[in-house]
Amino acid sequence: MADDTRRRRVAQAAAGVASLRAGLDRAAAGREMHALASELFPICRSITGAGLRETLDILGRRIPLERHRVASGTRVFDWTVPQEWNVREAWIRGPDGERVVDFARCNLHLVNYSEPRHERMSLEALRPHLHTLPDRPHWTPYRTSYYQRTWGFCLPHARAERLAEGEYEVYIDASLEDGHLDWAELVLPGESGEEFLFSCHACHPSLANDNLSSLAVATHLADLLRRARRRYTYRFLFIPGTIGAIAWLAANEERTGAIRHGLVLACLGDPGPFTWKRSRRGDRAIDRIVEFVLRTSGRKWETRPFTPYGYDERQYGSPGFDLPVGRLTRTPNGEYPEYHTSADDLSLIRPEALAESLDALLRIVEVAEGDRVYVNTQPKCEPQLGRRGLYGALGGLPDPGARQLAMLWVLNLSDGRHSLLDIAERAELSFDLVRETAELLEAHGLVRPA
Amino acid sequence: MADDTRRRRVAQAAAGVASLRAGLDRAAAGREMHALASELFPICRSITGAGLRETLDILGRRIPLERHRVASGTRVFDWTVPQEWNVREAWIRGPDGERVVDFARCNLHLVNYSEPRHERMSLEALRPHLHTLPDRPHWTPYRTSYYQRTWGFCLPHARAERLAEGEYEVYIDASLEDGHLDWAELVLPGESGEEFLFSCHACHPSLANDNLSSLAVATHLADLLRRARRRYTYRFLFIPGTIGAIAWLAANEERTGAIRHGLVLACLGDPGPFTWKRSRRGDRAIDRIVEFVLRTSGRKWETRPFTPYGYDERQYGSPGFDLPVGRLTRTPNGEYPEYHTSADDLSLIRPEALAESLDALLRIVEVAEGDRVYVNTQPKCEPQLGRRGLYGALGGLPDPGARQLAMLWVLNLSDGRHSLLDIAERAELSFDLVRETAELLEAHGLVRPA
Amino acid sequence: MADDTRRRRVAQAAAGVASLRAGLDRAAAGREMHALASELFPICRSITGAGLRETLDILGRRIPLERHRVASGTRVFDWTVPQEWNVREAWIRGPDGERVVDFARCNLHLVNYSEPRHERMSLEALRPHLHTLPDRPHWTPYRTSYYQRTWGFCLPHARAERLAEGEYEVYIDASLEDGHLDWAELVLPGESGEEFLFSCHACHPSLANDNLSSLAVATHLADLLRRARRRYTYRFLFIPGTIGAIAWLAANEERTGAIRHGLVLACLGDPGPFTWKRSRRGDRAIDRIVEFVLRTSGRKWETRPFTPYGYDERQYGSPGFDLPVGRLTRTPNGEYPEYHTSADDLSLIRPEALAESLDALLRIVEVAEGDRVYVNTQPKCEPQLGRRGLYGALGGLPDPGARQLAMLWVLNLSDGRHSLLDIAERAELSFDLVRETAELLEAHGLVRPA
Repeated sequence: MADDTRRRRVAQAAAGVASLRAGLDRAAAGREMHALASELFPICRSITGAGLRETLDILGRRIPLERHRVASGTRVFDWTVPQEWNVREAWIRGPDGERVVDFARCNLHLVNYSEPRHERMSLEALRPHLHTLPDRPHWTPYRTSYYQRTWGFCLPHARAERLAEGEYEVYIDASLEDGHLDWAELVLPGESGEEFLFSCHACHPSLANDNLSSLAVATHLADLLRRARRRYTYRFLFIPGTIGAIAWLAANEERTGAIRHGLVLACLGDPGPFTWKRSRRGDRAIDRIVEFVLRTSGRKWETRPFTPYGYDERQYGSPGFDLPVGRLTRTPNGEYPEYHTSADDLSLIRPEALAESLDALLRIVEVAEGDRVYVNTQPKCEPQLGRRGLYGALGGLPDPGARQLAMLWVLNLSDGRHSLLDIAERAELSFDLVRETAELLEAHGLVRPA
Repeated sequence: MADDTRRRRVAQAAAGVASLRAGLDRAAAGREMHALASELFPICRSITGAGLRETLDILGRRIPLERHRVASGTRVFDWTVPQEWNVREAWIRGPDGERVVDFARCNLHLVNYSEPRHERMSLEALRPHLHTLPDRPHWTPYRTSYYQRTWGFCLPHARAERLAEGEYEVYIDASLEDGHLDWAELVLPGESGEEFLFSCHACHPSLANDNLSSLAVATHLADLLRRARRRYTYRFLFIPGTIGAIAWLAANEERTGAIRHGLVLACLGDPGPFTWKRSRRGDRAIDRIVEFVLRTSGRKWETRPFTPYGYDERQYGSPGFDLPVGRLTRTPNGEYPEYHTSADDLSLIRPEALAESLDALLRIVEVAEGDRVYVNTQPKCEPQLGRRGLYGALGGLPDPGARQLAMLWVLNLSDGRHSLLDIAERAELSFDLVRETAELLEAHGLVRPA
Repeated sequence: MADDTRRRRVAQAAAGVASLRAGLDRAAAGREMHALASELFPICRSITGAGLRETLDILGRRIPLERHRVASGTRVFDWTVPQEWNVREAWIRGPDGERVVDFARCNLHLVNYSEPRHERMSLEALRPHLHTLPDRPHWTPYRTSYYQRTWGFCLPHARAERLAEGEYEVYIDASLEDGHLDWAELVLPGESGEEFLFSCHACHPSLANDNLSSLAVATHLADLLRRARRRYTYRFLFIPGTIGAIAWLAANEERTGAIRHGLVLACLGDPGPFTWKRSRRGDRAIDRIVEFVLRTSGRKWETRPFTPYGYDERQYGSPGFDLPVGRLTRTPNGEYPEYHTSADDLSLIRPEALAESLDALLRIVEVAEGDRVYVNTQPKCEPQLGRRGLYGALGGLPDPGARQLAMLWVLNLSDGRHSLLDIAERAELSFDLVRETAELLEAHGLVRPA
């Protein structure tokens, strides 16, 4: 009885996600997500510091985030949490007294984690500290130096080419001091203790696609899932890249065993095709689910094997964890020209692309919620479907119809070794039909969850 | 010594089937099988009743069938054996006093398992009980309603279109009463207790390809195998579809473990290519054997994965049995236009197609009988074949010839993990050459059955 | 400490083979190998006898060979070592008193292992003892009759066609007497007791490609490896075909468990593409290594499955041994027209082809020496490469570069299940880069040999 109640609720949970998705006003959701990205855009984020905290504060106004922090100097596996970096002002003034670049205009101008500086120097001495993109002379690159003390400025190559000889004044009013590494998470408990992890890096400054797009999509997704009945427990992580994932894994090592599915989210706002980067093993349930959803979505997509280079899938997929975590992007890192430059701005990300990404994630969740292994309770020969009103009364027809085929497939393959997704793929029937059919058969006591 | 005798007899058994096949007068066999189908054609068969019994009686005059029956009302797994259905007369008389359709002219006109009826009604009231094929206006469809009490008539669409308004008289002199479900089987014991199952449904009325063709072929095959030495025990089942297979499985559950190979036979008389529908697992020995035979037959053929829709492979392949049983047809059910219509008549099936089907089955039996795993008795280095007269005396020739290659292959792969069929496929040599070579090597003590 | 020393020496060993290969004067090596083949060419070799011993003596002047012998009549597995065969003189004199053929001019003229004979006979009686090649009328075939007492002569078909009627004198001054079967081997001990076997048949008379080419290449390879630090123990066998391999296996059965990799070498002097015939199982490490080397060599090559016909891979790959031994040739036996004829002479083999074969073998050895499985010592998350100076200080760049990618791949896949060759193939990086990277990471304590 309690068991029956549980099953019914689980079935409703899956339907719940489906109806959330069906009821989604995609245009409105796209606009909201773009607006959130726009609000976050000007903030100077880094792997630590006030900008990161402000970002988490803003997300925390949409969804009830739990905040965590680790003090500078803390050992996390092989790494040490660095000092906090905060910037008040940074510029270079030229021989003519004009500011060549100014952090106040665009926070990409300052190499992230530059140490404080105030000195005058020749152009020749300044040059090694200037970073440009000769191939894209009007864009400013994004550069960091988290773990090696240095300083530098990034600027358009065209501007750097025009610099006159003379004395330059460099001013960086920044601090590198003991503080904390911050992150935020939201846990939405489900019927099962098994977890579905979504992880986004939140450490990039004014770069829209990488990764404000995913912060916006993940926040919206989390907000929707708060309202759904859930089979899985959902965990959303908003963390600084690399060091944040490492710190989280160090603090939550014993929890990782509960992670059944996981996605690293990045670059979800550009109009490119979806790109699924598989989990380290490449054959996890999440690989099957995402590839099934993308293949049946009617959208352009591609899949790639795991590589140990990219975003935080590097850490989740390190050999000591080897978690079932893949990565969903649209155009991947390094493959669009605007990547890690000032051209990755709010015009690169589109409300409709954000909405499409959200829809794909909802469908992934829907399939994951609905996919399960059933066991045929009367496995010897077919059960008599007709006397239960489940099968057409008239015999001899050449084609049984999709619903009756789905019943036969679910009954035949519900041997404890095939999930509903396996059955849908093998039978070449729609997953939703197969899932609904399994629920109908379950209601008649002909199958039960394994 | 006793062991040696056994081996020799087994080798002879295989040769026996080969020589049966070599000695077969295919033209005469084709004519005989067509004549048997013609004799059976007019009988009104159903899943129970006098027509089914008469059919089994006729087959029983060719081969010594053992008869079985189960009383109406008996529970077989999830099903209940239905009441017997027998028909004496059935027709519709039109407003003009003419019989619109008459069961006496063609038993397809009456929906199989129609309940008794005698009443007058308007055309409007009659219409829902009339079944036609609008796309094939001159053919009468075949319809059944075994498990839901109703009645109906089947007729050409062109005729139904011409029905005048007025009063119609419906007369169905049929009975639905407690009785029995009948089937027949023939068991031909072999050297080994392992069984080779052939199963045919015998419940269709005047439909020639589905399934009188297979009754005729199976009867002829069984009759031939009676005269052969047999390694396997052969079991032929002539049963009503679905309920008959379920009743047989319920009555013989403990025997199913002995089934090593099995074929459901249907639609073996049309001139279409052979179609092998694999066993549920798809990788059983019978799948290998049938596909090898068809591939090397020089005939057109195709193979398909298992699906839980079709004939009685549905029951043999239910998850609680999961038997190594596939299905051999020519054009499969539902894929030829005449399927389940009055056009599936004696002109659709051809003596030469029946003979070709018989020949393919004999070859399948021959390969199954001959396929076995041997073990090399001197596995370290090659044995010295030359001193046994098994290898050419003169060395240095660039090509050893097929016989010598076959010896080397059988010796090399007879490690207990490869059957002769594996070896023939790997070596790209004929199965018969490989089998004969293995027998020659066995006679020299160089290999022995595993 | 001792362990560290061992690792360092192993790393040096691999580098040693690489530097041997880099330092190789291929033109000079090609000339030397061709000169050695030329020196060996005139000798009449067989599976026993003085010619075989003289051949081993000549090889023994280049490399320190250990000699072995087994007496005639000794049982080796299913075989018996035959009597020794030695020839002093052999010819046929025609009716006109001229010698039609003379062993002194070409040792192929006498069927190998012909028994002594001196008699006069008609052309008709002589004909069955004459072997020719009708399709290649100017070439003399190579024929043997080791295990069946007979005699015969081989000659050009054009010559045989011109023989006049009349009395012929046949003279074969040969002996078949108890003696020995000889072979030679060289063992170069390595750090590990695991063995790398190279096996060449040394029993063919004046045939250059089959197999003086391989005797020359193997001798040169062995001489080079004497000077290298070695991880594996290398064993070179110079043996009569078939009976020699069988005798060696019979005498060394307990040693075969140490064979980790093995190559049968033959036909390495013609200009054809390399042909790798896989080990019996087809998926051994040596199969991976050789195919990797050939695929990345920029040379033409092909691979083939194991067959139980060919050279001594037949014996190493018999089911009772099933050793990881494949076969490297250029054009395989039987696939070039000159095979086993007088046209397989010193003009068929080329110094540059011999040198290329030597180079391929050195590369195979180099990869085998360098390939190993490492284990990541800090498998949870990535280690902090930057603080060890192993990773670029500046972040944000779109492409990490091959060296840094190689580090991430080695760290990620060094889980005890992937060798460096696996990693190179998966990462699509050069094997040498991956190996050097693993050594660098090992020096930093981040990985250790499994």
